[in-house]
Amino acid sequence: MPTPITDVDLTLAAELGQQLRVDSIRSSTSAGSGHPTSSMSAADLMAVLVGRHLRYDWDDPDNPANDHLIFSKGHASPLLYSIYKAVGVVSDEELMTGYRRFGSRLEGHPTPVLPWVDVATGSLGQGLPDGVGVALAGKYLDELPYRVWVLCGDSEMAEGSMWEALDKASYYKLANLVAIVDVNRLGQRGPTELSWDLDAYGRRAAAFGARVFAVDGHDVAAIDQALAEAGDVSGQQPAVILARTRKGRGFSEVEDREDWHGKPLPPEMAERAVIELGGERNLLVRGPRPPEGTLRRPAADAAEVKLPAYERGQKVATRRAYGDALVALGVRPDVVAMDGEVSNSTFADQFAHAYPQRYFEMYIAEQQMVAAAVGFGARGYRPFASTFAAFFTRAHDFIRMAAISRASICLVGSHAGVEIGADGPSQMALEDLAMLRAVHGSTVLYPSDATSAAALVLAMADLDGISYMRTTRGAYPVLYDAGETFPVGGAKVPRSADADQVTLVGAGVTLHECLAAAGQLAGEGISARVIDLYSVKPVDTATLAAAAAATGGRLVVAEDHHPEGGLGSAVVDAVTGAGRTDLAIVRLAVRQMPGSGTTRELLEASGISASHIAEAARRLLAED
Amino acid sequence: MPTPITDVDLTLAAELGQQLRVDSIRSSTSAGSGHPTSSMSAADLMAVLVGRHLRYDWDDPDNPANDHLIFSKGHASPLLYSIYKAVGVVSDEELMTGYRRFGSRLEGHPTPVLPWVDVATGSLGQGLPDGVGVALAGKYLDELPYRVWVLCGDSEMAEGSMWEALDKASYYKLANLVAIVDVNRLGQRGPTELSWDLDAYGRRAAAFGARVFAVDGHDVAAIDQALAEAGDVSGQQPAVILARTRKGRGFSEVEDREDWHGKPLPPEMAERAVIELGGERNLLVRGPRPPEGTLRRPAADAAEVKLPAYERGQKVATRRAYGDALVALGVRPDVVAMDGEVSNSTFADQFAHAYPQRYFEMYIAEQQMVAAAVGFGARGYRPFASTFAAFFTRAHDFIRMAAISRASICLVGSHAGVEIGADGPSQMALEDLAMLRAVHGSTVLYPSDATSAAALVLAMADLDGISYMRTTRGAYPVLYDAGETFPVGGAKVPRSADADQVTLVGAGVTLHECLAAAGQLAGEGISARVIDLYSVKPVDTATLAAAAAATGGRLVVAEDHHPEGGLGSAVVDAVTGAGRTDLAIVRLAVRQMPGSGTTRELLEASGISASHIAEAARRLLAED
Repeated sequence: MPTPITDVDLTLAAELGQQLRVDSIRSSTSAGSGHPTSSMSAADLMAVLVGRHLRYDWDDPDNPANDHLIFSKGHASPLLYSIYKAVGVVSDEELMTGYRRFGSRLEGHPTPVLPWVDVATGSLGQGLPDGVGVALAGKYLDELPYRVWVLCGDSEMAEGSMWEALDKASYYKLANLVAIVDVNRLGQRGPTELSWDLDAYGRRAAAFGARVFAVDGHDVAAIDQALAEAGDVSGQQPAVILARTRKGRGFSEVEDREDWHGKPLPPEMAERAVIELGGERNLLVRGPRPPEGTLRRPAADAAEVKLPAYERGQKVATRRAYGDALVALGVRPDVVAMDGEVSNSTFADQFAHAYPQRYFEMYIAEQQMVAAAVGFGARGYRPFASTFAAFFTRAHDFIRMAAISRASICLVGSHAGVEIGADGPSQMALEDLAMLRAVHGSTVLYPSDATSAAALVLAMADLDGISYMRTTRGAYPVLYDAGETFPVGGAKVPRSADADQVTLVGAGVTLHECLAAAGQLAGEGISARVIDLYSVKPVDTATLAAAAAATGGRLVVAEDHHPEGGLGSAVVDAVTGAGRTDLAIVRLAVRQMPGSGTTRELLEASGISASHIAEAARRLLAED
Repeated sequence: MPTPITDVDLTLAAELGQQLRVDSIRSSTSAGSGHPTSSMSAADLMAVLVGRHLRYDWDDPDNPANDHLIFSKGHASPLLYSIYKAVGVVSDEELMTGYRRFGSRLEGHPTPVLPWVDVATGSLGQGLPDGVGVALAGKYLDELPYRVWVLCGDSEMAEGSMWEALDKASYYKLANLVAIVDVNRLGQRGPTELSWDLDAYGRRAAAFGARVFAVDGHDVAAIDQALAEAGDVSGQQPAVILARTRKGRGFSEVEDREDWHGKPLPPEMAERAVIELGGERNLLVRGPRPPEGTLRRPAADAAEVKLPAYERGQKVATRRAYGDALVALGVRPDVVAMDGEVSNSTFADQFAHAYPQRYFEMYIAEQQMVAAAVGFGARGYRPFASTFAAFFTRAHDFIRMAAISRASICLVGSHAGVEIGADGPSQMALEDLAMLRAVHGSTVLYPSDATSAAALVLAMADLDGISYMRTTRGAYPVLYDAGETFPVGGAKVPRSADADQVTLVGAGVTLHECLAAAGQLAGEGISARVIDLYSVKPVDTATLAAAAAATGGRLVVAEDHHPEGGLGSAVVDAVTGAGRTDLAIVRLAVRQMPGSGTTRELLEASGISASHIAEAARRLLAED
């Protein structure tokens, strides 16, 4: 590599801005796809940032002292990748032949398959919340002076999650977070709500506790000054730079024009654009290096974790076991916890009391909570985030994107299903298993007792990807001895005999109903096998298939969930996925809209209680 | 019923506030569950509102001129139901024996099983966005002077959706919307972020375009004045009343104390509280009546709709057919449309151009978009809301709650699956079918051609509950003649013969791959039946079971979706749900994290193309 220019003055920064525009056009035109105009509006902002302010060791993206650069407006990927060319980590050839091509790491929107990308973006309104997580880690855990610079679009300021992010950034005094809003006034299909009304944006950002800088986003000197001031981490407030820009800036045929969102320039037009922008350039630059800094975080040592022990028969809610186990896990310095203002229900409060410096109250902002978890994960921490299981639906898009971010985060949802009783359907998770099972690479756990819950919390702490545990409100008898192992992907068979005629499958509250049903059936001379399907994904196909084979294909699955996508689906998917099957299955699930009531009333009315399970088993046997 | 007091002066309003407190305590104590303290903080606000400002005909909740009262803080249901007692529509007996009981309409959180409730609440941060929808209907469609009063909690101001709501309320100049924020400073597990800092709340609300009133929420005169001013609809701004209140107000043992969230008072304590509050009362009051107003909306006449016609073989994207059909539906005056700032991609823009007065641009705020749809639905309109299918995950909690609201809303998601190509995984819906199938009472449609898409859009307009259509980015050949019928719950069999050995099931892009695979197999002497599963829920069990029976139980399902909860699940659920089955099924789905590429490259790499379908069929036949 030729020697890069390390002393980027403002004149050179302006030149660099033009290069970024030219390369954004060239790459997207070569791909026949992409967002050149949304890149061109932010080119000067990024040129000054990368050339003069971003402290980044491009040869060592894992340097803990590096600043972070997140493109919340992920569709400006041509700009980001053109920056990578300008600093010499991506070649012009890769840019021109890789962008948006099959098998390439230069995807349509940035993902962490690139070593310089912290989090996947492309669903708007997520990069800034993710950045809050990284900044929280920097200020409170890493205790390093890095800054988190987030390039935001103006359109995405309509997403409530952006305001959750600013709210938390100001609550947690994240002076190390800088949102740079590219106010180019044009969204996909026309003008934005606030157009170029920087005052309106400014009033909002200031009211949410930010230091606000309004600049002409094409004036490199003004940008430089704003970045210098915004990047000062000595204060207590996050910074928001509002940059008035022009979409497609620099090419008169598209600049500030509608109908040029997300469209590459046709080749002839791209040629004219490059000429108007002064031609191709191959500036190679490097901005400031990070300060020397070492991470003081000690290595995690799972061996030290001493799980809580429960006595068989003792009634303990699995949500309480979550809290107990999380405290036990706290000896691992990488474990952090968050909750959505219900920690006294989820029992995350136990961790908050034991390890207050690693607990972050996210109040009622589930989107920001999951985004913060992703940010912590990007910094190498192991985040556990909890709320009522129903309210993880609020963060579905963030969970989906977390999977694309290749994040390893642990989510724990309490108060699942009709089991919760009187609070009614708004608080009853009845679709969480379907949601989490459909997340790429996810693990979905649903323990039935405190021993397995605690063991699985420990297992979650070392799983890759998105892991989810569903816990239960009520206290039910401990079924397993302390020390019993619960491998992810396994199942338990708490009741079985050679003469079993039918298999009953449950998890959580319905496992206890299955056990009761098996007891009833035994009294009638019917031998039933019971499977505790604590690992809903991956699922123990071998145990299920063996049970189906042993019991004439007769299966009853009972779940405190809607009939689609949950436990029953996991079972059917498993047994039908392993080759030709002869199956007689009854799936009991919550098929009517529940109201309030006691747990017992609602389990009965929903048809998932022991009596319904036993009746289904009898029916299957009678039908044969 | 005794004659109610209709002239509620401030002295009486204060008395009424005490009654509401007493009844909130009595009802929750009798139920052994509920939120008395969160009700007590807002009792004076509601007493003055209901007694002196809310224009409501309690004997005719369907009166179109009625004001609307939404409890965004749904956990204050004891207060709401105590109001219903005070106006004489719920008896003291029902309140005392029904609240939170099984089978009762007085559920833990309000739902529209009660005729005075517009929308279900209980997931915080949703009542105000719902109210924006009702207010939009009032101002722009009903053109009636009703006001929408929304009681909000202070904790829920941490939800970004509340700021999406204020943003849209000010953008659409909804002077008919009043948010009353009960700032009692205490959340579930402790103080809120902003405590009693009314100035901070006020700056935020003002910056988002609201008229702001700050009052002592226990000073009935101050409340009265604020409500009078806030309820003036002559301006152009929504109103936010910030009321400084004390949680548990009026009972010294709990007032402004932590650890009293969501807990009923034990009976002895409740007795002391009632004494301290001055004892039980049975005031019967009626506030102002609504002005005479009639709804000018003409009745819907589906017969007038003339669907677009396409020629077989013509290549038309189903998303374009959505736009065409929506315009055709526009002759129905109850049809309204919304989009999340991608209407030129979803083709909702066609409706926007044809019926601008019934199109509402929601910008990039999917939560608010779905909430607005629920609000329109509450006013009797038939809303269609569209965005990229992936981004409906952003509104999952709102969709879930819409089902509890018994809302009938139509959602249309475009750009599904890897089929979209170069944009990459952030834009690829790969979990939308799982999400929507698991919604209670939902309908999930996934047409493969323009003819069926248009017909199904028409069908959606008369479906109860949440209906969802997944559309496709690319243009594929029209398969069916205009006029062909596509009943919801049906399926088409575009290719079948008596000698069929295997059944191929697809929808959307994979149906075209199934047809191509069947063609390949025919060349090898293998006869394959093809099923177009345009109705994913409800699903055509009879057609699937018949096909399975006719083809030796051999099924191949291909879907542009993750393997969990989508098309394959729908098929397996159907065929295993109808009794003992002998099944050999292969499910092809997107199992790896996709990147960018062409449609063809990504279908191939994901293993859901014609060649993979044909290979799976051959494998099934070879295994037998």
